[in-house]
Amino acid sequence: MRRVVLFLSFAPLVFSQAPEIQKILKDSEIAWNRGDLAAFASHYEDSPQTTFIGREVTRGGTQAIFERYSRSYPTAEKRGTLTFSEIEVRPLATGLALATGKYSLKRTEAGGGDASGRFTLVMRLTKAGWKIIHDHSN
Amino acid sequence: MRRVVLFLSFAPLVFSQAPEIQKILKDSEIAWNRGDLAAFASHYEDSPQTTFIGREVTRGGTQAIFERYSRSYPTAEKRGTLTFSEIEVRPLATGLALATGKYSLKRTEAGGGDASGRFTLVMRLTKAGWKIIHDHSN
Repeated sequence: MRRVVLFLSFAPLVFSQAPEIQKILKDSEIAWNRGDLAAFASHYEDSPQTTFIGREVTRGGTQAIFERYSRSYPTAEKRGTLTFSEIEVRPLATGLALATGKYSLKRTEAGGGDASGRFTLVMRLTKAGWKIIHDHSN
Repeated sequence: MRRVVLFLSFAPLVFSQAPEIQKILKDSEIAWNRGDLAAFASHYEDSPQTTFIGREVTRGGTQAIFERYSRSYPTAEKRGTLTFSEIEVRPLATGLALATGKYSLKRTEAGGGDASGRFTLVMRLTKAGWKIIHDHSN
């Protein structure tokens, strides 16, 4: 019993940022679904060290990420409707977290059909808030 | 010129662990290629929090990782010959690093044919050395 109580009382001190990160993922989803890829890309750190591993490797700041998504998802039909699920946020160190989950794109046949996969995000707390410094999506 | 000199002199202080992590990946490759999946799995942290994202999500310690690989790669033919390439190691915080790269499996037709993909590893310096706490491979 005592261990449970300790866990419950310390957990929020140890990592109260999980809801913030959950909110960022929610904001990303909303930005995607209104076709705002610039807002979607703004959740990545604007740094040449930022990396995105998809089919190829993309490196660079928000502009590089924005261009990558714009190339792959140029139309509303190709973007479809994005839903994130099974999101888990794990603290790694102070100001550093790992977020994993599943993405699903609901799309018409012409848009490429439904698609889904899993993602791993490494996120860092910057002056501008939590930002994705590495994304691996498949 | 001065910037180059500063970079060269500070870089080893900031992150001298990259060669250690490179060595672990080399050891993993060698273990795989001699069919020693237990040694391969030993580079993962033996913790219920350890995660592996492949087609499905695997959770758990070295035993869970070992079983996952044993199920997917039960024979020498299915394991083929593993080569890691394009390895990059990035420090995240003290005792925490991100390693990314490409894996290639050279296999016979009967073994499933050649396969390749990219991986993201989050690694933590534990009392037992650097261990993988999260793997996302596709």
